Amino acid sequence: MPEREKKKRKNKLLNLSNKELKALQKTVHCYPGATDSWSVFLHKALLSKDPRAHTMADPWQTAYDFAVQVARAAGAVIRKAGEEEIKIQTKSSAVDLVTKTDERVEKIIIGSLKEQFGDGTHCFIGEESVSKGEACILTDKPTWIIDPVDGTTNFVHGFPFVAVSIAFAVNKQLEFGVVYSCLEDKMYKARRGQGAFCDDEQIQVSDVKDINKSIIISEHGTDRSIEKVTKIFSTMQKILRIPVHGLRGSGTAATNMCLVASGAVEAFFEIGIHCWDIAAGAVIVQEAGGLILDVDGGPFDLMSRRMMSANNDVIARRIIKEIELFPVVRDDAPVGTSQV
Amino acid sequence: MPEREKKKRKNKLLNLSNKELKALQKTVHCYPGATDSWSVFLHKALLSKDPRAHTMADPWQTAYDFAVQVARAAGAVIRKAGEEEIKIQTKSSAVDLVTKTDERVEKIIIGSLKEQFGDGTHCFIGEESVSKGEACILTDKPTWIIDPVDGTTNFVHGFPFVAVSIAFAVNKQLEFGVVYSCLEDKMYKARRGQGAFCDDEQIQVSDVKDINKSIIISEHGTDRSIEKVTKIFSTMQKILRIPVHGLRGSGTAATNMCLVASGAVEAFFEIGIHCWDIAAGAVIVQEAGGLILDVDGGPFDLMSRRMMSANNDVIARRIIKEIELFPVVRDDAPVGTSQV
Repeated sequence: MPEREKKKRKNKLLNLSNKELKALQKTVHCYPGATDSWSVFLHKALLSKDPRAHTMADPWQTAYDFAVQVARAAGAVIRKAGEEEIKIQTKSSAVDLVTKTDERVEKIIIGSLKEQFGDGTHCFIGEESVSKGEACILTDKPTWIIDPVDGTTNFVHGFPFVAVSIAFAVNKQLEFGVVYSCLEDKMYKARRGQGAFCDDEQIQVSDVKDINKSIIISEHGTDRSIEKVTKIFSTMQKILRIPVHGLRGSGTAATNMCLVASGAVEAFFEIGIHCWDIAAGAVIVQEAGGLILDVDGGPFDLMSRRMMSANNDVIARRIIKEIELFPVVRDDAPVGTSQV
Repeated sequence: MPEREKKKRKNKLLNLSNKELKALQKTVHCYPGATDSWSVFLHKALLSKDPRAHTMADPWQTAYDFAVQVARAAGAVIRKAGEEEIKIQTKSSAVDLVTKTDERVEKIIIGSLKEQFGDGTHCFIGEESVSKGEACILTDKPTWIIDPVDGTTNFVHGFPFVAVSIAFAVNKQLEFGVVYSCLEDKMYKARRGQGAFCDDEQIQVSDVKDINKSIIISEHGTDRSIEKVTKIFSTMQKILRIPVHGLRGSGTAATNMCLVASGAVEAFFEIGIHCWDIAAGAVIVQEAGGLILDVDGGPFDLMSRRMMSANNDVIARRIIKEIELFPVVRDDAPVGTSQV
């Protein structure tokens, strides 16, 4: 492509006049290590402190594209581990398999991301790091929120929903989410303001407003205390008897949210989920035209461990009426806080 | 292939001496329309009244192969209808879509089967025929038991489990079952005594005997009466608190049984299902090494609308302890019998 044509394309993509582009390029070339290649140019430009670059175009496209690649690679490892497990036809060593796979997949994801973005400016929150006693605090810094294997019970059993979930937040706002449902081989992704996609086809939530025609997802979670189980089942029973078309559950929160986003179900809510289960899904649902609320109808709080996702406000509000609340400890509670 | 080699192969397959084979061929060639081709030879031989042929080999292979082809063709129609539905992005005309698709698919299945086997010797039982007021009685005649679209609610919503279910019984014994999970594109099939398969790979039930490591499927069915819903939820809650690893549900009985057969879950039970939902799955579970019982632990009765399928007796018996029974009208009750 001739040089002039290249310039025109850059110009068009950034929506800049030639004069503006030249000014931006000058700034960019001040940064050490900058080269002339298009991707590096854009990356540097967008990561630069020039406020114009941040507002004019897309500061996190490289990170987003990278997250999709990493999720796919991680999912392939999970799928392969699952196939090997199916071949040996025994579940006796399943716990070992999960531990090993979790560790391997986490290493792939966190390792790759740290290599690319680990100069100290980015933070990482994940099930693994938190279980090792690291704090789970969302700051204004660029933060990756990761669940390497969402649906470990499904994974052990070969139940067909296991997901890799990678989200990215800046200034406490979620910028993008990637959920790779690796046994189905479906790649869900969304960037704030740019729509939601499954395998590059745009998806949108269902248009159902009649609660009687809805399918609702709720999970019973991992807590087996009688008080919580009773409240969860009482809620599910009341919702079924509204009546709704049906209740479902895939066994993974990340996939459940993608089912809302793609219109297969109208709503999914849960009390007790963690931020890494739902952060990526939250972007995907919102970009598919749905909404995310607290289970009491208030604003969504990523660290609250409470979440209602729905295709629209009518469905969300009707379901919220039936939800029996119970207390949970926030994700960002000080380490060692005991369960309420 | 030289003629001598061909003869040897036939001989080997039928496990006959050359002398026996010649004798059998003589019988076969008495039948009108017989030709020399291998498949016709075998088919005629096996359908012949020669008792030796019946015991020596396989009288229903043609029917079985045909059922697989028909299920695949029907599933493709369902999948295409679903994709079209997703494209138009509205659920308002969903009921019409289901009715139309149900009718089209039923026509494909019953039409093809009647063309092939509809000389009056075969019977047909299906949701559609029964809803038109036809009797639902299992006799000793060769009988096809069909659900053209199992999981209509899922189908309307695009929830990823919709199945074509075709079973075949002779002398009230199930001979084979075919379940095509058409959105996943997974073909499950089993012939009595010959193992169960998914896409031509042999499958088997899970080896889990520890109830605490099991996943159990139960569906809440379509009845929304408070007595039944309360009993169903009470049962589910008690099972969860045994505790088990988890509860799941795909929304289609046929697929649920295939999930038992392939080891993804340990058990699936339901009160209120119909014979056409579970007949094919019952063969598949049994041929995968699992078992089918009544929900009270007694022998399975296809027409009773009660079914417990499990990977083994230990898991089945433990779950049965928790099941709260409620009455249902049998599938073969006289037409017009009111619900108990």
